[in-house]
Amino acid sequence: MSVEMQVAVTSGQARRGRLITPHGNVETPVFMPVGTQATVKGVPQDVLEELGVEILLGNTYHLYLRPGVEQVRSLGGLHRFMAWPKPLLTDSGGFQVFSLSELRKVTEEGVTFRSHLDGSSHFLSPESSIAAQIGLGADIIMAFDECTEYPADAARVRASMEMTLRWGKRSKKYFEDHKREVPWSGSPPGAGALTLPLGLPSAYEGEAGSAGRVEAPTQAPRTQALFGIVQGGMQPGLRQESAERTVEIGFDGYAIGGLSVGEPRSLTREIVESTLEHLPKDKPHYLMGVGTPEEIAEYARLGIDMMDCVLPTRAARHGLLYTSEGKVSIKQARYAGDEGPLDPGCPCPICRRYSRAYLRHLYASNEVLAQVLNTIHNLSFYLDTMRRVRHSI
Amino acid sequence: MSVEMQVAVTSGQARRGRLITPHGNVETPVFMPVGTQATVKGVPQDVLEELGVEILLGNTYHLYLRPGVEQVRSLGGLHRFMAWPKPLLTDSGGFQVFSLSELRKVTEEGVTFRSHLDGSSHFLSPESSIAAQIGLGADIIMAFDECTEYPADAARVRASMEMTLRWGKRSKKYFEDHKREVPWSGSPPGAGALTLPLGLPSAYEGEAGSAGRVEAPTQAPRTQALFGIVQGGMQPGLRQESAERTVEIGFDGYAIGGLSVGEPRSLTREIVESTLEHLPKDKPHYLMGVGTPEEIAEYARLGIDMMDCVLPTRAARHGLLYTSEGKVSIKQARYAGDEGPLDPGCPCPICRRYSRAYLRHLYASNEVLAQVLNTIHNLSFYLDTMRRVRHSI
Repeated sequence: MSVEMQVAVTSGQARRGRLITPHGNVETPVFMPVGTQATVKGVPQDVLEELGVEILLGNTYHLYLRPGVEQVRSLGGLHRFMAWPKPLLTDSGGFQVFSLSELRKVTEEGVTFRSHLDGSSHFLSPESSIAAQIGLGADIIMAFDECTEYPADAARVRASMEMTLRWGKRSKKYFEDHKREVPWSGSPPGAGALTLPLGLPSAYEGEAGSAGRVEAPTQAPRTQALFGIVQGGMQPGLRQESAERTVEIGFDGYAIGGLSVGEPRSLTREIVESTLEHLPKDKPHYLMGVGTPEEIAEYARLGIDMMDCVLPTRAARHGLLYTSEGKVSIKQARYAGDEGPLDPGCPCPICRRYSRAYLRHLYASNEVLAQVLNTIHNLSFYLDTMRRVRHSI
Repeated sequence: MSVEMQVAVTSGQARRGRLITPHGNVETPVFMPVGTQATVKGVPQDVLEELGVEILLGNTYHLYLRPGVEQVRSLGGLHRFMAWPKPLLTDSGGFQVFSLSELRKVTEEGVTFRSHLDGSSHFLSPESSIAAQIGLGADIIMAFDECTEYPADAARVRASMEMTLRWGKRSKKYFEDHKREVPWSGSPPGAGALTLPLGLPSAYEGEAGSAGRVEAPTQAPRTQALFGIVQGGMQPGLRQESAERTVEIGFDGYAIGGLSVGEPRSLTREIVESTLEHLPKDKPHYLMGVGTPEEIAEYARLGIDMMDCVLPTRAARHGLLYTSEGKVSIKQARYAGDEGPLDPGCPCPICRRYSRAYLRHLYASNEVLAQVLNTIHNLSFYLDTMRRVRHSI
């Protein structure tokens, strides 16, 4: 066993549950903050824990280039490397490589690309992506897929989908042959696979074992989980075929990829809804790379269990803050004398302590603390949004 | 009364005590982290509190330019503006203005300078510096002085010292005439002058009133304290004269300025030691702008009560970290695979959680978290250094 999806309650299409992983449990539906280079930009790990983050996403492309997979593996894997003992997910690297439109070449075998850091040439295939993700050792890893561009004609979408299916099979085969090589495979079961490298305070260790937070299964899962990815562009028929054939290959969970790539939101919703009908109810459903607070709430109500997006963290760095009263662009001069909290309805540490005037000053002064505080608030807002959705199911 | 210096223990020249201010007490000798633009770069205020920071320094020059004194005053003063309810000190702005060597002109009246931000022209005098510092409302403010350059000939040092004395008198006169205009002068005594603008959690409010942390005097001081500054270059005779004549003017505390400007460390020590002999024992002794961990420990043992320096925070941003085993340049490739903590002997949250390999990765990847974590460690190291010195007295 790798991960287990326990659906506790359903309400219409929505479902509330728990994802059990080797490094702890995750209440679903869940929003996963993005920690691209083994860090959620500007936010220390203990603050993420205090905000209630239960799972983080790392980007294989970035970690593969720096510090390198072998470096992370030799340090015990990504959990130990970044001192994050809770669940982790890595993407396959495919999406980032495809974004390097000028620097890559796709063949049946895989993708040749040049590093955005130094221009050096690299090759990523289903096998090398899975090998990298096993070396990093996240709890959940992703099949290597091709994210079809939008718009694309029918022939192109089908060809791309077929390649994603072939790559999905190769990803699974490599994973099955090598999944025991994960850095923490030798750890004793039950106690959680992670021993932090450094002596953490006892309060911290206590938390991991406390009731309600992380209830360890009788027999903790001992390998990573591999998720397949449904493609098929914006055509429900192709999406259905992709879903059915991906399920045939057989994965521990299923992701919907290739959305939020420029299409109208009504179309995104339609594709999510129709695709979900063809995914097994007893496996986790992961919608990749979405969205605004309204959107993640909406997709959760459609039956999505997991989502990730750079939006809250990236917007925060640009001074765009989500509040219960709408989006606030904190750089505006109108906030220079505003003594009130960013969001009066928000219980986050930033809204409890600082004024809009201070946050505006930090941003206007190019202070690093602006990024830190803004990111903490936006993440808190996203996590609260999902908390409310879970309670409503 | 403005501030009160209670000397509890002396040991040789060293003294341990407590500085009582309108916003709480400070255990001395103390290191004051620098929060230039109303923020210690990259570190949230609650982390500073957890580290045990009891007093912060703000830079009048920077705050005068941005967000502006009237803005801070209208928001209740610097404590409220930056959500820092504990003691604050502001410098006079003089040192920063003198650093703008190409952009300033000094006359008897004051200094004309151009903003480093937009080139706009400004004028700072003893009167306008004190007015700005009253508007900002720190607990301790500094007389406007001229920091004599090094090296300088005897005539130049005397002329500069004489001007600092005349400016000191003008600073004091303006302060005496206007000290009731501090933003928090109307606050009720005893309870501390600060009401935070936002609803802080009760644990936070409880802390401010808890025994041992902030013991409010029976009658809390109700105005700011003005400190005079001793100049006189590197000549003990001139330093003695400057000290005696500054004491004659009469201030709430005395600073030694114009050191750590390029002179050899043995000379700094000699000037500090000889100057201290001429300062009153019942007033705080503040040595401005020093130094390394070894130096601040040394000066504390000479009888200095207060020090500030950008070194721990600035060095952290350049990946230079102070440890019990010496300075570590975390950018070095040798740390890429180093699983150990930065400083095995350090109890700070960074050394308890993260490895050298991770800190090196963050720095090499230009991640903002590098600056955040490095700064927290260096500040912690400085604060621990002073804690040890206090315990040794």
